[in-house]
Amino acid sequence: MQALHKGKQSVIFDNQPSILASAAIAGKKEAEGPLRNYFDYCGQDNTLGQKSWEKAESKLQEMAIDTAKRKAGCDYKDIELLFAGDLLNQCIGSAFAIRSTGIPFLGLYGACSTMAESLLLASAAVNAGYCKKAAALTSSHFASAERQYRFPLGYGGQRTPTAQWTVTGAGCCIVGTAAHGPYVNAATAGRIEDLGIKDANNMGAAMAPAAYSTLRAHFDDLGRAPNDYDMIVTGDLGALGKEILIDLFRRDGVSISGVYNDCGTMIFDLERQDVHAGGSGCGCGASVLCGYLLSQMRAGKLKNLLFCATGALLSPISTWQGESIPSICHAVSISAEKR
Amino acid sequence: MQALHKGKQSVIFDNQPSILASAAIAGKKEAEGPLRNYFDYCGQDNTLGQKSWEKAESKLQEMAIDTAKRKAGCDYKDIELLFAGDLLNQCIGSAFAIRSTGIPFLGLYGACSTMAESLLLASAAVNAGYCKKAAALTSSHFASAERQYRFPLGYGGQRTPTAQWTVTGAGCCIVGTAAHGPYVNAATAGRIEDLGIKDANNMGAAMAPAAYSTLRAHFDDLGRAPNDYDMIVTGDLGALGKEILIDLFRRDGVSISGVYNDCGTMIFDLERQDVHAGGSGCGCGASVLCGYLLSQMRAGKLKNLLFCATGALLSPISTWQGESIPSICHAVSISAEKR
Repeated sequence: MQALHKGKQSVIFDNQPSILASAAIAGKKEAEGPLRNYFDYCGQDNTLGQKSWEKAESKLQEMAIDTAKRKAGCDYKDIELLFAGDLLNQCIGSAFAIRSTGIPFLGLYGACSTMAESLLLASAAVNAGYCKKAAALTSSHFASAERQYRFPLGYGGQRTPTAQWTVTGAGCCIVGTAAHGPYVNAATAGRIEDLGIKDANNMGAAMAPAAYSTLRAHFDDLGRAPNDYDMIVTGDLGALGKEILIDLFRRDGVSISGVYNDCGTMIFDLERQDVHAGGSGCGCGASVLCGYLLSQMRAGKLKNLLFCATGALLSPISTWQGESIPSICHAVSISAEKR
Repeated sequence: MQALHKGKQSVIFDNQPSILASAAIAGKKEAEGPLRNYFDYCGQDNTLGQKSWEKAESKLQEMAIDTAKRKAGCDYKDIELLFAGDLLNQCIGSAFAIRSTGIPFLGLYGACSTMAESLLLASAAVNAGYCKKAAALTSSHFASAERQYRFPLGYGGQRTPTAQWTVTGAGCCIVGTAAHGPYVNAATAGRIEDLGIKDANNMGAAMAPAAYSTLRAHFDDLGRAPNDYDMIVTGDLGALGKEILIDLFRRDGVSISGVYNDCGTMIFDLERQDVHAGGSGCGCGASVLCGYLLSQMRAGKLKNLLFCATGALLSPISTWQGESIPSICHAVSISAEKR
């Protein structure tokens, strides 16, 4: 159990790389939610024609990067570096999705923070001139996550009120240099925060302090405030974690509620879709960013976005061994115009 | 099953970051091997005083980064970015080891390629000026790997001749800017290669094509040849994979055997220690690099080293589902003098 950490952890990207294109792939339940019109593809069922849930999850990533590269008007050989990861043991969702692409690959594990982590690193690589184009990619799948983290679906286990629903979805951004936005202007790498929450069915409460820590560092490091953004989103804190984050800032006398939302509460209709505290998983923040949010930026409806994806760095084994949940959050600042 | 990929995937680090310090921690069996004198610490047993193998593995990483930072004469707050990962599901070896350090953390999954991947990214971050000091860290543990990938130890499963022995060990490098080496002058990010090997007890054969692919790209991209190095090491191909790699180059009319070795065959006495094809695991390449190899560079006995760590991106589930083994290799070029 650790106290909250403070200090400099942000970087400004002077060359402001562009998100050349993005793609979001979603499952059936996600396609029944409020953001249905913003996904590039929605599965009719969650198998995507594959023989296992794990292969279906790989298919989500395969489709996301294929769609993104077509929208960017480039080919796999033009993408010089790929950052990807997912929730599956040994990140097989990513490895099998991209093995035929031939793209130089640096694998990540950031749990549900992976979309922000991969976008941070892809932007850092392009900004430094290490490559002309880099891709950021991640996914999650409800059924592969349930059987790995909780119970086989056929068991029909009861869900607690604070439980979240792992999103079946994937997102991909192709980052490069262009005279059009959205631009990535800065990012903040998170530290692990762990305030001792041990309930693996209450990820929102475990991850909220990490979101608070990274947002505080972001504002302090860069001299920015919540109102410098017209939207701040976390990846998958869910309804409860969202309230905790608003509360943590309220204690500092800072109100974030006017600009703040959580992808886990945006992707599903919480009243109607029986997802308890909301969506979760790498694919939650990824599909909301790569689908809805970036299209809002391209349409001029969103000018400055702070995308903060949160991750719970537990495993079933760490929970069985009585451990609390180390959590992390990475933030990426994206603007429609150069900033 | 994929053909070998070709193309540009290397980067030169113009500012040649320094490895300010490194530390290697090893288990009992490793301490009985030929490199015993080069580890900073050797465990008396493999529990390291912890209640589970997973916690013991975290302890290895904790000790590695603690020792490295002391040798670098710095504190955790001076390290602005940490790249780490391991083989355990959800990389809990890393997350629990570093949660109390407060260092901004970007988690990786590269299987046994993690030492090269983390060193590549830490060097890239320092070279680009994103941070003054970055750390690269990884581990593996024989017992936590056996129960996750194969059988519980108590089962006493028979090992095949091509099987390797997961090294209990960890390594950490602190990268920064200094007027002394070892310097990191270039790196090559690998692509996934998968020639269809499905035998999870023959990782060497699965990974050798990835090592070949990355080494070829490294030589082609940078106009270098094997003899530009006085040592090229792979991470954990083992005795069989090592022979395959030598053979693959021989087909091109290139002899690497004069300068080439594999950490998996260096860390154990293969005749005496009953490890079959040799050592494996993230901790194999990591402890040999951070212990033996870098100390040879500091002592002036090694001038130009190409460290190539290989990773098999499989999981037990992908094997059970009949999949072949996607493999990867990342290479980092390290020199005693600026190059």
